[in-house]
Amino acid sequence: MAEHQSLEPFGPARSTVKGSPLSEDEIKQYDDFFKASCYLSLGMIYLRENPLLREPLKKEHLKLRLLGHFGSAPAQIFTYMHFNRLIKKYDLDAYFISGPGHGAPAVLSQSYLEGVYSEVYPEKSQDIEGLQKFFKYFSFPGGIGSHATPETPGSIHEGGELGYSVSHAFGSVFDNPDLIALTVVGDGEAETGPLATAWHSTKFLNPIVDGAVLPVLNLNGYKINNPTILARISHHELRSLFIGYGWEPYFVEGDDLDSMHQAMAATLEHCVNQIRGYQKKARDSGEAFRPRWPMIVLRTPKGWTAPRKVDDNYLEGFWRAHQVPITDPATNSAHLELLEEWMRAYEPDRLFDKSGKPIPSLRALCPDGNRRMSANPVANGGLVRKPLRMPNFRDYAIKFDRSATTLSSSMKNMARFMRDIIALNPHNFRLFGPDETESNKLGAVYEAGKKVWMGEYFEEDKNGGNLAMAGRVMEMLSEHTVEGWLEGYVLTGRHGLLNSYEPFIHVIDSMVNQHCKWIEKCLEIEWRAKVASLNILLTSVVWRQDHNGFSHQDPGFLEIVANKSPEVVRIYLPPDGNCLLSVMDHCMRSVNYVNVVVSDKQDHLQYLDMDAAIEHCTKGIGIWPRFSTDAGKNPDVVMASCGDISTKESLAAIDLLLQHFPDLKVRYVNCVDLFKLIHPSEHPHGMSDKEWVSLFTADTPIIFNFHSYPWMVHRLTYKRPGNENIHVRGYREKGNIDTPLELTIRNKTDRFSLAIDAIDRMKHLQNRGAAARQAFLDAQIRAREEAFETGMDPPYLTQWTWPREGLWKKAAEKLVSM
Amino acid sequence: MAEHQSLEPFGPARSTVKGSPLSEDEIKQYDDFFKASCYLSLGMIYLRENPLLREPLKKEHLKLRLLGHFGSAPAQIFTYMHFNRLIKKYDLDAYFISGPGHGAPAVLSQSYLEGVYSEVYPEKSQDIEGLQKFFKYFSFPGGIGSHATPETPGSIHEGGELGYSVSHAFGSVFDNPDLIALTVVGDGEAETGPLATAWHSTKFLNPIVDGAVLPVLNLNGYKINNPTILARISHHELRSLFIGYGWEPYFVEGDDLDSMHQAMAATLEHCVNQIRGYQKKARDSGEAFRPRWPMIVLRTPKGWTAPRKVDDNYLEGFWRAHQVPITDPATNSAHLELLEEWMRAYEPDRLFDKSGKPIPSLRALCPDGNRRMSANPVANGGLVRKPLRMPNFRDYAIKFDRSATTLSSSMKNMARFMRDIIALNPHNFRLFGPDETESNKLGAVYEAGKKVWMGEYFEEDKNGGNLAMAGRVMEMLSEHTVEGWLEGYVLTGRHGLLNSYEPFIHVIDSMVNQHCKWIEKCLEIEWRAKVASLNILLTSVVWRQDHNGFSHQDPGFLEIVANKSPEVVRIYLPPDGNCLLSVMDHCMRSVNYVNVVVSDKQDHLQYLDMDAAIEHCTKGIGIWPRFSTDAGKNPDVVMASCGDISTKESLAAIDLLLQHFPDLKVRYVNCVDLFKLIHPSEHPHGMSDKEWVSLFTADTPIIFNFHSYPWMVHRLTYKRPGNENIHVRGYREKGNIDTPLELTIRNKTDRFSLAIDAIDRMKHLQNRGAAARQAFLDAQIRAREEAFETGMDPPYLTQWTWPREGLWKKAAEKLVSM
Repeated sequence: MAEHQSLEPFGPARSTVKGSPLSEDEIKQYDDFFKASCYLSLGMIYLRENPLLREPLKKEHLKLRLLGHFGSAPAQIFTYMHFNRLIKKYDLDAYFISGPGHGAPAVLSQSYLEGVYSEVYPEKSQDIEGLQKFFKYFSFPGGIGSHATPETPGSIHEGGELGYSVSHAFGSVFDNPDLIALTVVGDGEAETGPLATAWHSTKFLNPIVDGAVLPVLNLNGYKINNPTILARISHHELRSLFIGYGWEPYFVEGDDLDSMHQAMAATLEHCVNQIRGYQKKARDSGEAFRPRWPMIVLRTPKGWTAPRKVDDNYLEGFWRAHQVPITDPATNSAHLELLEEWMRAYEPDRLFDKSGKPIPSLRALCPDGNRRMSANPVANGGLVRKPLRMPNFRDYAIKFDRSATTLSSSMKNMARFMRDIIALNPHNFRLFGPDETESNKLGAVYEAGKKVWMGEYFEEDKNGGNLAMAGRVMEMLSEHTVEGWLEGYVLTGRHGLLNSYEPFIHVIDSMVNQHCKWIEKCLEIEWRAKVASLNILLTSVVWRQDHNGFSHQDPGFLEIVANKSPEVVRIYLPPDGNCLLSVMDHCMRSVNYVNVVVSDKQDHLQYLDMDAAIEHCTKGIGIWPRFSTDAGKNPDVVMASCGDISTKESLAAIDLLLQHFPDLKVRYVNCVDLFKLIHPSEHPHGMSDKEWVSLFTADTPIIFNFHSYPWMVHRLTYKRPGNENIHVRGYREKGNIDTPLELTIRNKTDRFSLAIDAIDRMKHLQNRGAAARQAFLDAQIRAREEAFETGMDPPYLTQWTWPREGLWKKAAEKLVSM
Repeated sequence: MAEHQSLEPFGPARSTVKGSPLSEDEIKQYDDFFKASCYLSLGMIYLRENPLLREPLKKEHLKLRLLGHFGSAPAQIFTYMHFNRLIKKYDLDAYFISGPGHGAPAVLSQSYLEGVYSEVYPEKSQDIEGLQKFFKYFSFPGGIGSHATPETPGSIHEGGELGYSVSHAFGSVFDNPDLIALTVVGDGEAETGPLATAWHSTKFLNPIVDGAVLPVLNLNGYKINNPTILARISHHELRSLFIGYGWEPYFVEGDDLDSMHQAMAATLEHCVNQIRGYQKKARDSGEAFRPRWPMIVLRTPKGWTAPRKVDDNYLEGFWRAHQVPITDPATNSAHLELLEEWMRAYEPDRLFDKSGKPIPSLRALCPDGNRRMSANPVANGGLVRKPLRMPNFRDYAIKFDRSATTLSSSMKNMARFMRDIIALNPHNFRLFGPDETESNKLGAVYEAGKKVWMGEYFEEDKNGGNLAMAGRVMEMLSEHTVEGWLEGYVLTGRHGLLNSYEPFIHVIDSMVNQHCKWIEKCLEIEWRAKVASLNILLTSVVWRQDHNGFSHQDPGFLEIVANKSPEVVRIYLPPDGNCLLSVMDHCMRSVNYVNVVVSDKQDHLQYLDMDAAIEHCTKGIGIWPRFSTDAGKNPDVVMASCGDISTKESLAAIDLLLQHFPDLKVRYVNCVDLFKLIHPSEHPHGMSDKEWVSLFTADTPIIFNFHSYPWMVHRLTYKRPGNENIHVRGYREKGNIDTPLELTIRNKTDRFSLAIDAIDRMKHLQNRGAAARQAFLDAQIRAREEAFETGMDPPYLTQWTWPREGLWKKAAEKLVSM
């Protein structure tokens, strides 16, 4: 085929696929549908009264403030409606993802014409009154958003923050073999990093077990105020790019409506047939393969069908069509006239009946029932969600004879639990991660489900590759993509877990923010059924970035999460392996949360047997009598911690203190559920002040060793009685190439520093404490020297267990069994 | 050319460019250089003693803990050393960016062989003692990092968090017309979103005024534990991908050293000549164009030249070569033997002389002086930094007759200042942003420097496009890319500013984190000269996301920044336009900081004339007597704010209070410099407790209206005297489609809520206050109703100015002129 080289979006259709599948009459019908849809989009932006222009347009009919975006609407509408033809023809199971920013007018108009919008929101009925409300409340306080927000029927993707349409689409079709996600990608969005790499998702899509994504890259040429890159490179480069990404791009370019209708209809049909053909071939043969999946490049003018110019300024086909296309009809009567003329050209008189209802021939183009894309239950994932089949987490308990004497990897143990969840849920659960699952010691999962890989296979893969075309683990070195997949997967009714190094999870701060916001809104929307929680497991934690150095030290993701709605976010820092099991079991069963679990992957001390762990995690925070010597009352000091490494150091600090002050009344408090610390008015998990005092007292020094930044504990506890007694240690920016010990010492979260903190804060020890203080300092220096000599932490620190024999005599006698 | 289709990295060289530029003798020399470099890389990972294997290798010579990564080293070394030939031949100005994670052994070995490392760190001398230290301290506590950290000579790019090598490289060559950034991109890194879109940077590079980036995509095939996508797609797809991105890819593939030396030498030379040719053509003609710039795809085995197998497991050419290639030589004597054999195959006996110095023929391959890539001053940007030529910011003052009676856009005004900075610094300053510069009301800058655009041009661009091939404004819809460009630009000695919508700046949380860490480390490194600060201007703030809705509401970036080192981060929230000018002037002149400035773009009240603004910004926080009625002592309440919108509401709340309680002693405190709030032990800007008390008292209720999350103020002030009196209002996750007023009301940061807060906290007003309280509630409800009716905030709120005539009589008399 000779390449058509024009980059201008104007003229008769130029398309890769030829064909005229539509009759003249059909062209006319689609033209009507397009007009009605564009009319609705403009109405949303402009009109508060006179919704069908039954009287001449006056400025009093206009909204006082014009808000909303027209630019991407026509091309999205065009795509949506022509796909409807194929849904009807082939009885397709499909839904629509609107990638371009502020794409709501496009999808709202379709949902309204399908009748879904009025079914979901009866007051926005298909008549003049309903239409007026529909228009008025668009981009209006408390009303309808200008993005495809959770209130939008059929949406799982808001498109507020750009970049995630393709990864969301893929997430939704994994394990949904009959589903097609028709995904319009904006050429602005396409410039973002997350979108640019998400095209590679095809290397993880299996045509037997998964559905298909049909992307339509809409080159309307402009962003807010700039041309787009992809609209200004040669046809050859553009085509090469998508072939390079592994797609077969089909071009549909132009603005002449009649020929464009034919071209789009023919191209979409060709793509659907190709998708179905590849799926059939793979499914019939049982042999998966990676075809070059079809995608469409739809080049149309921005604000297609708007006036080409307003005065001397280009509108259609320029960035001025991005938002409100004609900005001043209220003050410029010529512009008001132009607007009216434009709107009337969409023929509202003809296309809506006397009552204001769309005429039957429009409705006839829409599919029925749940085949209407805005009614597809997959986009209200809670409706189709099946609970996970869960093994009994108690069966994976780490067994030990005595608390705090056994070292083992909580993560490695938990991997067996995860493995069996995978085995029990072969179509309903996936594990996601950026190439770190094995490094995070979760490799046992591969026994139940290998890593999905649709790229080429080499001989070496047979020996430890753990790759398979049909697998359960999704790994790509793009936190953005795996997070996007997980979000799409969960929002369409399935379950999953993302595992990541703690320090690099900041890469997806903004994505997690947006998901939290999505879930929070969903809580307010009656018809949105609850979806599985988004579970994020952070490991390879900041305290064990052994020698990786400063760039790998950042525990701040917890703050990002804690800033989101208390209705949505949950943060757990299990101190040991049995607590990790209990917490994970809870998270996997929960709905509509974003759960963040922080647990290191290295060997750590195990403290609680399974029953004690369940009890502790259920409470979320509690005194550990075994590690306390205050017999439940009037402690001299409260040692507290949150996080596994923090806990070990806190307990070792108690050990040190008791060596020197055997009669010391120490209370140890462990926190698993971070939001227990906050007042109940701020988070539903918050404990009452009474409970707080029963744990921490109102007048005792508290040495709180925390996994993340110390001020996070202050922020959570500043309203607590006796909050001035809380002395928090945590991570601060003082990094280096460090051993774990050195890192804790620099941050004063090591046992020696904590013990010194405790002495310094117990007034009655000020005199007695000097010798002990010095002994701790000496021991700290000794340990440092050893570490600097060998490059490793001294074994008596790394392998420290509790209790050390023969130590703290009086105190030991007081020990209460847990 | 027939396409070579093998994806296996083994065998004789397969290359696009043919040729044999090297003599047999040269091949031998480069082979030696390669061997010496690989030997050094292994030595760093394994040896603490016996650095040149002058005696048989024993386990006692091994480091106790083996850390470091070999996988990407050989191919990076190979690239680096063959480029040296061209530096010498053509006297090139070039430096090296190491993209693959943990790439330090590659660059350290080169710096050591060039002699630069020993010049910078004399104790790591070019002899046995120095070598032993060099080896020992690699990945050792307090020692040499396993990434190209700031301590690494010649590095501006650490490669800890992956994804930014290409955007950093482009940033460094903008306005550096003679510079070539030789940039190795890992195939793991290439999967990240930021990297995937950064390839498009060519659409912003002008061959006349800018230098060139020569990317070498190293397909070593594996990440930590997975194959890489780009190594497992067909040659056709891979080639198409880079053509699509706008590059001309040249392939060099194989593992046979002799033929690979020839192929790489020929290919690099071809690329350099092509780069120079394009530059010459453009410069001679004065006509810029976008060539298809050359790039190289270097496909080699991971851990190239490592043993192919260890026992039955693949090592070379598999992911097992990623990190420490042979993991257990200390406990497995066969493996110790294998390691020794492997290391001796690199012939350390021959390649280092008796003293341990590299033999002269190795040194002879390196360029001299600053032409050595690890000595290029561009990578120590402070050395080449020229101060900005600054216009006098006072000349841009917003003039007004009376404080708080004029509404204007601080941002639009500041744009004139920015415009003139651009004009005065045509080669030394650029403005960066993700397609929002115009929307952010900074459009005036285009008068001095247009937007760089090397894509196709259309007719429409002439009418408001503001595009040019040589411009000063860099806009791409990728926060990642523009931030990466800015970082590269600043780190190589220039100046810049990023402007962004506040809510979406979280997209680059992790990048800013990493830059803060980089700068912090630089402060500790004597030879690193100071670079210009990284300036981030946040606007389109969370409080004015008019109708954009919930997804556009997130003020949390300030917390991300505040968590970084106090030596590096600065946060300013100027209350008005003259303060914005003063703050921006300060930021643009500063060095080695990350400055974040938050200022809305809409029209706002102007409070301070230029002199007062300078004084206020210099102090960073202060009482505004004009808006206070306490005559400087014993206030009944302190109303405080930080942020422009917050300030307006706080002042309006004072107005409301005074209407009802004309004798109220109100003190108003404004905070510009956020870190003034924190104790000086925590940040150098922190004020003393004495100053704190002089502003806030220790016993008066404080109603603090804050731009971001309220707990941030608590976190900053929890150590302050009387901190229990601080009542903070700020943003919380309660979003919706809102008018600005409604958003503040939901968050209780509006004037009515603040006035009610004040009443509720002034004990002596408990009885007198009931009527006023009710009046405020009524007014609030009325204002809401109006807004819900019209979709707009009532004009008496948006246009509220101070003082309203005839109000608060007694209080007005007390006003002190500022």
